[in-house]
Amino acid sequence: MQLIRYGQPGTEKTGVLIDGVRYDTAAFGEDYNESFFENNGLERLKKFVDDNAGKLPKVNEAARWGSCVARPSKIICIGLNYALHAKETNAPIPKEPVVFFKSTTALCGPFDDVVIPKNSLKTDWEVELAVVIGKKASYVEEADAMDYVAGYALHNDYSERAFQIERGGQWVKGKSCDTFAPLGPFLATKDEIENPNNLNLWLKVNGQEMQNSTTSDFIFNIQQVISHLSQFMTLLSGDVISTGTPAGVGLGQKPEPWYLKPGDVVELGIEKLGTSRQQVTAFK
Amino acid sequence: MQLIRYGQPGTEKTGVLIDGVRYDTAAFGEDYNESFFENNGLERLKKFVDDNAGKLPKVNEAARWGSCVARPSKIICIGLNYALHAKETNAPIPKEPVVFFKSTTALCGPFDDVVIPKNSLKTDWEVELAVVIGKKASYVEEADAMDYVAGYALHNDYSERAFQIERGGQWVKGKSCDTFAPLGPFLATKDEIENPNNLNLWLKVNGQEMQNSTTSDFIFNIQQVISHLSQFMTLLSGDVISTGTPAGVGLGQKPEPWYLKPGDVVELGIEKLGTSRQQVTAFK
Repeated sequence: MQLIRYGQPGTEKTGVLIDGVRYDTAAFGEDYNESFFENNGLERLKKFVDDNAGKLPKVNEAARWGSCVARPSKIICIGLNYALHAKETNAPIPKEPVVFFKSTTALCGPFDDVVIPKNSLKTDWEVELAVVIGKKASYVEEADAMDYVAGYALHNDYSERAFQIERGGQWVKGKSCDTFAPLGPFLATKDEIENPNNLNLWLKVNGQEMQNSTTSDFIFNIQQVISHLSQFMTLLSGDVISTGTPAGVGLGQKPEPWYLKPGDVVELGIEKLGTSRQQVTAFK
Repeated sequence: MQLIRYGQPGTEKTGVLIDGVRYDTAAFGEDYNESFFENNGLERLKKFVDDNAGKLPKVNEAARWGSCVARPSKIICIGLNYALHAKETNAPIPKEPVVFFKSTTALCGPFDDVVIPKNSLKTDWEVELAVVIGKKASYVEEADAMDYVAGYALHNDYSERAFQIERGGQWVKGKSCDTFAPLGPFLATKDEIENPNNLNLWLKVNGQEMQNSTTSDFIFNIQQVISHLSQFMTLLSGDVISTGTPAGVGLGQKPEPWYLKPGDVVELGIEKLGTSRQQVTAFK
């Protein structure tokens, strides 16, 4: 099943994507949030969709695509989870997952403009596979980790490199600006993805391919990441874990790093998880 | 006005504290959450309390004290915001606020046990003044920052120093364990505190005073912190900002750091914001 949300920011309605067409599931009566995932929402939604096969209203094609899940309790990100990306940023290969948070206010739709924050000169891109948690998780073993997954989505972990690296040591300042977390187009439920640790992912800026890799290059795979995180905090249903980006970010460009400017177009995709596109705009 | 929440974890009811006695405001019909603060809840609650003066039911004295506000969208912490604390941890005086997040799942009541996480040897204390945001804030000037404050509360920013410092570089792992954010006993609304940048705060372990300082020693005061944060992320109503801890944490003890063990009792307080107490327990 592929879950989508649509409509204006903050008042999104829910839907499902079937053969590339968006259908409205507002009559189901629940947003795709913590309560939905925690209370067996995916199974109940599946039944609702099956029961209403052929009868669900189509979503207007012009309707904005929202984030594919509602605002979660947290967006957790893994840093430096691909060896070549660690290398391009001159960081050592991590011995265990590097973990940081993104403010959930950064969440937005997959085709929304990305807004360069005030006083920013170094807004950068990061295509990432995001995992959405389906069940409250604490001290989970790697062998059981997949039981806690609801599904997967495409994420662009936008990062302001000066804010991240030059402003006091912790990365959160460079990760949390509004529009810095376009998520979707859709959440693919776990059953749709045979092996999330083996998916091609790519990103282009103005048509030029900047990133192209596969999640089989993860230093820490999804099971390891979930188990690791759950040793340090409780993961709640609907929480988003972004699993790190491969090489090819602006910061890693040779001979000089370069960054996004208003008018640029960022396109990205992950095998089986669709594509997204953000137009870069200046803060108004 | 002093706001409290009481009852079992996850199903807390609301109340107010009047002359040290807890009164139930469940009939008001709203939790103290983002929607409450964003929609003028403090003013409406004040009217409700005034309208029901002498008629509010008392809360059973045995009832557990919950966190004084509902789970926020984020708990933002300021690191090294007192010069002597920076010195005791061998860190330089920050040139701008050091910012990190705590998982909101760490939130708990002010008298709940603090649970030493599995595999932890270095669980430490940090008395802090917490600010609760009353209005959505983005790119706020220092001169206007106090307009965005709902009130203040006592917070113990428990920290696992090995998880924080020795496990991959970002601090979030050491800040996010369950029970690591006891908040309260109450939220004092802004009007109750003449100058939040001049409050005594202290913490004792097993009766021995470990921390005793004043928020007048802040490196960055509350106005500066709110303005600074709002340059990097949108603050939502109900968000909690913990403003840093003064000297005297376990990590800073000479000749050797020492940490909490099961059976220890931590007591803390801030002038005009009450006291809290946590018994240290092992993970079961």
